[in-house]
Amino acid sequence: MTDSQESTGAQVVMRRLLAEGVDVCFANPGTSEMHFVAALDTAPGMRPVLCLFEGVATGAADGYARIAGRPAATLLHLGPGMANGLANLHNARRAHSPVVNIVGDHATNHKALDAPLESDIDALGTWLHGAVHRPESAADLDAAVRDAVRDAVGPLGKVATVILPADFSWGPAEVPAAEVEPSEQSDSSETIDVTAAAELLRAHGDKVVILLGGTATGASGVSAAARIHAATGARTLVETFPARLARGRGIPPLDRLQYLGEVATQQLAGATHLILAGTRKPVWFFAYPGKPSELAPEDAQVHTLAPADLEKLADALGAVAPEPAEPDPLPAPTGPLTVQNWPLVIGALLPENAIISDEANTSGVLLPAATASSPPHDVLTLTGGAIGQGLPVAVGAAVAAPDRPVIALQADGSAAYTISALWTMAREQLDVTVVILNNRSYAILQMELQRVGTAATGERSRSLLDIGNPNIDFAAIAQGFGVPATRATTAEELAAQFAAAVEEPGPHLIDAVLSRVP
Amino acid sequence: MTDSQESTGAQVVMRRLLAEGVDVCFANPGTSEMHFVAALDTAPGMRPVLCLFEGVATGAADGYARIAGRPAATLLHLGPGMANGLANLHNARRAHSPVVNIVGDHATNHKALDAPLESDIDALGTWLHGAVHRPESAADLDAAVRDAVRDAVGPLGKVATVILPADFSWGPAEVPAAEVEPSEQSDSSETIDVTAAAELLRAHGDKVVILLGGTATGASGVSAAARIHAATGARTLVETFPARLARGRGIPPLDRLQYLGEVATQQLAGATHLILAGTRKPVWFFAYPGKPSELAPEDAQVHTLAPADLEKLADALGAVAPEPAEPDPLPAPTGPLTVQNWPLVIGALLPENAIISDEANTSGVLLPAATASSPPHDVLTLTGGAIGQGLPVAVGAAVAAPDRPVIALQADGSAAYTISALWTMAREQLDVTVVILNNRSYAILQMELQRVGTAATGERSRSLLDIGNPNIDFAAIAQGFGVPATRATTAEELAAQFAAAVEEPGPHLIDAVLSRVP
Repeated sequence: MTDSQESTGAQVVMRRLLAEGVDVCFANPGTSEMHFVAALDTAPGMRPVLCLFEGVATGAADGYARIAGRPAATLLHLGPGMANGLANLHNARRAHSPVVNIVGDHATNHKALDAPLESDIDALGTWLHGAVHRPESAADLDAAVRDAVRDAVGPLGKVATVILPADFSWGPAEVPAAEVEPSEQSDSSETIDVTAAAELLRAHGDKVVILLGGTATGASGVSAAARIHAATGARTLVETFPARLARGRGIPPLDRLQYLGEVATQQLAGATHLILAGTRKPVWFFAYPGKPSELAPEDAQVHTLAPADLEKLADALGAVAPEPAEPDPLPAPTGPLTVQNWPLVIGALLPENAIISDEANTSGVLLPAATASSPPHDVLTLTGGAIGQGLPVAVGAAVAAPDRPVIALQADGSAAYTISALWTMAREQLDVTVVILNNRSYAILQMELQRVGTAATGERSRSLLDIGNPNIDFAAIAQGFGVPATRATTAEELAAQFAAAVEEPGPHLIDAVLSRVP
Repeated sequence: MTDSQESTGAQVVMRRLLAEGVDVCFANPGTSEMHFVAALDTAPGMRPVLCLFEGVATGAADGYARIAGRPAATLLHLGPGMANGLANLHNARRAHSPVVNIVGDHATNHKALDAPLESDIDALGTWLHGAVHRPESAADLDAAVRDAVRDAVGPLGKVATVILPADFSWGPAEVPAAEVEPSEQSDSSETIDVTAAAELLRAHGDKVVILLGGTATGASGVSAAARIHAATGARTLVETFPARLARGRGIPPLDRLQYLGEVATQQLAGATHLILAGTRKPVWFFAYPGKPSELAPEDAQVHTLAPADLEKLADALGAVAPEPAEPDPLPAPTGPLTVQNWPLVIGALLPENAIISDEANTSGVLLPAATASSPPHDVLTLTGGAIGQGLPVAVGAAVAAPDRPVIALQADGSAAYTISALWTMAREQLDVTVVILNNRSYAILQMELQRVGTAATGERSRSLLDIGNPNIDFAAIAQGFGVPATRATTAEELAAQFAAAVEEPGPHLIDAVLSRVP
C-alpha cells in the first residue's frame, strides 16, 4: 500500500473493493483500464484472473458469486467491452448474482469528442436493470465503489456497474487511505408469514404448490420443502433454471419445473395456491401460437414466502424428514454414447462435493434422475437463457471453490460461444472437467421449430439447425487452448476418461460424441 | 412463393428484404426466430449463412457491406442475442456500414411477463445510434422492413434494427404479396464546393491537409488526392481506420493518420486548413494524462468536401497524375519470423484482386509499406476499435465477393474473441486465408501501459498482458473447426504455406509464430 499522497484513483478503487470483501477480479482490460491493472501491483490481496473475452469474464463472475456467495469484480474495456460481456451479465441478473463491473471510460475531457470506442455505457448498465455509478469526480470514486458493492449484494443480488473515467483513475486519490473502512453489509432477510402459510397448507394440502428458487434451493430449503410435502401433501418444485441447486444422496430430489411449458402446465395443474419461495410467478419461456403465457392455473392464488422461513414452516407443521431413499446402484452403461446413457456414466462417477455447471440443454434431460443418488453436489444452471454461460460459470465456480471438483456439462452449440474460457482454465490450472455433449446440432431448435407450429420441412431451414457440417472437433480445440483432451464415443470410453480426468488435478475436456439415433 | 392468403408475417419480412435487394442473411437463430427460418424454404433467393455466435454474424454483415456496397441482414435471438453481436455492430456503425438486423422478440402478449430472455431490445438499437423499428402490428411489418433498409443504406450507412415479435412472425400476412415492390434507394450524394476548395488549395498549398475517409478511400478518391498533392503540395492522409481502402500497384500509397496520437499530431503539425472528405475531425483514440484530445492544430480551419468531388477538385486544379513509382522488387526474407519480416512475405505473395481484413494490430505496423507495390487490393480495418472483428469481417467479405481471395491478417489476442468464425469459413468453403500473427501477448496493451504513464513494473500487472501462458495453438483450434491449418516459425515456412493456401480454394489458417525478440 502506498500512502494517500502517492495513491491514484485506481488504487482507491482497488482498496475499496478489498475493504468491501471483493478480492477476485475477472479481467479483460484495455487502454483505459491500464491504471487499474497497474494498481494490482500495490494490492496483493486482489486476485486477477485474465479472460480472453469479456463474456468469459462476466460469466465467471456469475459462477463465482453463485458459489462464493459474494461478488467478484469484472474489469471491462469501455462500452464495447461491456457489450461483449452483456449476455452473461443478463444471465447473472436472472440468477440474482451479485457482480461488480469496473468499466473503464474515456477521460472526462475526451468524452465529447466521440472517439471510436465512445458509447453510452450507462445505457448498458441500465439495460441490465442494475445499478450504475458514474462518479462525478475523483473524490466520488470511493463512495461509488462502496455503493456499487452494496447495491450488488443485497437484498436481492444484482449487477452493479462503476464507470471509471481514465483521468479519475490516473489522477491523485482524494480520499486518504485511512478512511477506507469496510461498510456494513445489507441485511438480506425478508418479511415472513409462517403462521399463515402453515394454515394454508393444513387447509389445502395437495392443492398447494411450493415453488423454490434463489436462496431457497440450498440443501436446507430443499429438505424443508420435502418435509412439508411429507406432512401436508403439498407439491414441491424447483424453478426451471435455479442459480444454485443442492442435489445428491441425502438431499430430497425435488422435481424442477420443466422447460417445456406443456409439461410445466401439467406439473402445476389443479393447484389452488402457489407459494413462491425465492422465485416469482412462473411463465412460459417463449410464447407459442395459441398457447397461454402463464403456467399456473388462472385462478390459483399466489403467495410469497421468505426462503429463510422454509425450515420454520416445516417445524410449525411438525413435519419430520422423510426416510431418505436408499441409493439404487446405477447400472454401468455400455455401447455407443447416447442421450440416454451418458448421464448414467456421470451419475455413477460424480466425485464427492462436486459443482456441476449444467449447460447440457437438450442432451441433459435425463441428468437429474441419473445424479439423484450421486454424492451431494451443487448444480448451476442457465438462468437467463443466454447460451454460452456454462464454461465461464465453471471458471468462476472453480476460482471460488478451489477445493471442489467442477464438472461442466456442456452442449456443443453453446460451447462455441465462449470457448476461450478453456484457456483461462488452463492458465489458472482450474480443476474443471468439461464434458462436451456433442450431438452436432442445435437440437433444441430442431424441437422448437416444430413447437412454434411451423411447417418447415425444407433443406434450407433445417440446415440452420445443423452444426455437423463440418463436425467440430472439441478435443483439438481444447488442446489448442492448452487443456488436455480426449474423445469418447462409447459409454465405456466416457467412464474411463471421466474417471481419469477427475482423478488428476487441473482442467480436462472430454468430447463426448453422441450417436444421432439413440 | 405462396400467395398472400397462405403467407406468414415472416414471409412478408423475407420478401420485402429481397425486394429491397437484401439477399444474404448471417444468422444465429433461436426459438423466437423459427418462423423466419422456416420462411427460408419459400424464399430461394435468400442465402442464409449460419454463424456459431452472434458477434460473427454481425461482423460478417459489416464485412459484406464494405465489399458489396449494400446491406446484408442478420438474424439475432432477442436482446441477449443482439447483445452478443453488439460490439461488432459498434464497429459497423463506425464504418458507416449499412446493416439490417432482424431481431426476434417474444410474442406481444408475452412481453409483460418478464420471461427469462426478456430485455429492452430497443435500447440496444438506440445504443448503436441506429434506426429501430418495432412494428405495432403485423400490418406494419412490410413498412418496417422497407424503412429499415432505407435507413441502413443512406445517405450515411447505419445499423437499422427491425424487432420482430414472434406472433407477428407466425401470424397471417396483412399485405398481399403483389404490393411488395422495390422501393427507391436514397440518394447518397452531398453538397459540394469545388471552387472554394480549389482557391483554398491554391492559396495555402502545403498548409492544407486533406483527410480521406468513408467513400473517399476508393481508388478514385485516393488517386485524386495524390493529384491534388502533386499540383498544390497539400498533404494527403487517410483516416486511421478506414472501412475500405484501395491500395497496391498503380494506386498512390497515401499515408494513414497514425493510431499513436503523438505521431498523428506530427502528421498534422503546421496545418492551417483541414479538408475532410468522407470523415470527421480527427481526435485521439484515448485521452492520456496531460495530453490534448484534438489532433489537428487548435487554430486550423476545418472544411468538409463531398467525397465525390475529389476528382472534380483535382480537375479544377488542372492536376495531373504523378508518375507511378516503379514497384521495387521486395527482398525475400529469411530466418525466424518477426514483426519486421512477415509483412514482406505477404506483400510479395499477395494474390491479384485480394481483400485484406486487417486486424494485425501492433504486429501490422509495417504492413502498408510491404504491400504498397503488391497487386491492387482493398483493405478493411478495425473501424470502431472493438477487437474481434477481423475474422467475421473476412467471412462477410468472402460471401460478398466469392471470386476474390480474402486474406485475414489477424492478431492472436483479438482472434480469440470470435474464433468460431473459422467454422463458418469451413462450412461455406469460403476462400479465406487466415494468418494469425501469434506474439503470445496483448502487445498493444504492453505499449499502452507505458503510454498512460503508469509506473507498473510488477509481475501481477504484466501478467494480465501476457497471453503466452499457455501458448495458444491456433492450428489445432482451426482444425477443430474444420479449417486446414499449418504452423510457420520462419519466413520461408510462411512463404511456402501462404503460397499453397492462396493457391487452393477454400479456407486455410497459418499460425505464424513470431519471435518475441526480433
